[in-house]
Amino acid sequence: MKIGIIGTGAVGRTIASKLVELKHDVMMGTRDVTEKLGSTAKDAYGNPSFSEWYKTNNKVKLGTFAEAGSFGEIVVNATHGGSSVTALLLTGAKNLTKKILIDIANPLDFSNGMPPGLLPGLNNTNSLGEEIQKTFPDTMVVKTLNTMWCGLMINPKLIGNGDHVNFISGNNTEAKNKVKTILNQFGWSDENIIDIGDIKGARATESMLPIWLKVMSVMKNGAFNFKIVK
Amino acid sequence: MKIGIIGTGAVGRTIASKLVELKHDVMMGTRDVTEKLGSTAKDAYGNPSFSEWYKTNNKVKLGTFAEAGSFGEIVVNATHGGSSVTALLLTGAKNLTKKILIDIANPLDFSNGMPPGLLPGLNNTNSLGEEIQKTFPDTMVVKTLNTMWCGLMINPKLIGNGDHVNFISGNNTEAKNKVKTILNQFGWSDENIIDIGDIKGARATESMLPIWLKVMSVMKNGAFNFKIVK
Repeated sequence: MKIGIIGTGAVGRTIASKLVELKHDVMMGTRDVTEKLGSTAKDAYGNPSFSEWYKTNNKVKLGTFAEAGSFGEIVVNATHGGSSVTALLLTGAKNLTKKILIDIANPLDFSNGMPPGLLPGLNNTNSLGEEIQKTFPDTMVVKTLNTMWCGLMINPKLIGNGDHVNFISGNNTEAKNKVKTILNQFGWSDENIIDIGDIKGARATESMLPIWLKVMSVMKNGAFNFKIVK
Repeated sequence: MKIGIIGTGAVGRTIASKLVELKHDVMMGTRDVTEKLGSTAKDAYGNPSFSEWYKTNNKVKLGTFAEAGSFGEIVVNATHGGSSVTALLLTGAKNLTKKILIDIANPLDFSNGMPPGLLPGLNNTNSLGEEIQKTFPDTMVVKTLNTMWCGLMINPKLIGNGDHVNFISGNNTEAKNKVKTILNQFGWSDENIIDIGDIKGARATESMLPIWLKVMSVMKNGAFNFKIVK
């Protein structure tokens, strides 16, 4: 399947590599292709530059946001939450029309220091997932994978034999089922993909970031996830 | 130990019964003792009236908020989050001075229908736990147990052999250690009591309510909790 990924950070790269491994055809989208390919500085988290990463991941295509949006039969939003709507507007509503947009971003607000809270206007009574759905009413937004470290998104079996949960929400059941198929390919079992209903569910999963960050600060490591005991 | 409980709803009753079973001396506080003892109507959740419950739980003392606050060496806030500060002001700062206040309430906002969000001003960049700590600076507020159904608070072994998590936060380490002793009595193992630091941790645990409510709506049952897989 042709998949476009909006964003070239650690999360986008992790998803892109895995999708290529799974024989999908992947194009990542960025604001300025020439600048991105010429970048040599590590990012704020110490990850290698895109050009360094790209040397060993050259089956991934690179294009503008609009080109990646147009390319994808399914599009993934892997931008920072604070930039997501802007990046998706540059991607273009027409390039997203009648397509599934998998939103894995979180509206983290770093303006008050660490740990981040959630961005004003995108928390509690709204969410990034809902905001994107409202901005692109002809797109089927599916929120998932946003409650964990990216290494687990594409390899849940890294811990606890994969027996921990990933939430999914969105207004369109058929779209969620298609996304579940990709999640299955990543290693998620059906019983651990928990459907929490329409896109308002994004409020609930994005609200898990504060406890996720607290647990990470205790664990000193992102390789953990939540399981539901019943 | 003498323990005061502010609030007489299902959560307060559950905690009170368990503390009596553990041989603690318990007084519950309410706004109007005569009215509470005379009540015969079930509450909004279908729980029996207080007077009905009290027939089989008469080792628990009943007093005003202030009397219960004065009585307790440790005080528990088991009111609805929207009423907590008001109820604690009626309890009286002097009755809470230099005492541990265990805050198990959540600032749920039912004004926009179900499921509730969190109350304006008490979410994201603030929390009920912090608001109480700011209002009563001479009290040691410890936030815990607010991320689960009350039946599990006092009996974690009801599911999964008790192997699931309870978060604790507060500014005073000694106070948290005393609360941990009570949590141990409830059946919580030390390794499943996760200390997430100062009272700002209340932002993180109160923010878990939206996902808790979503999972409950999927499970059709409150007898579940989160475990951390690593």
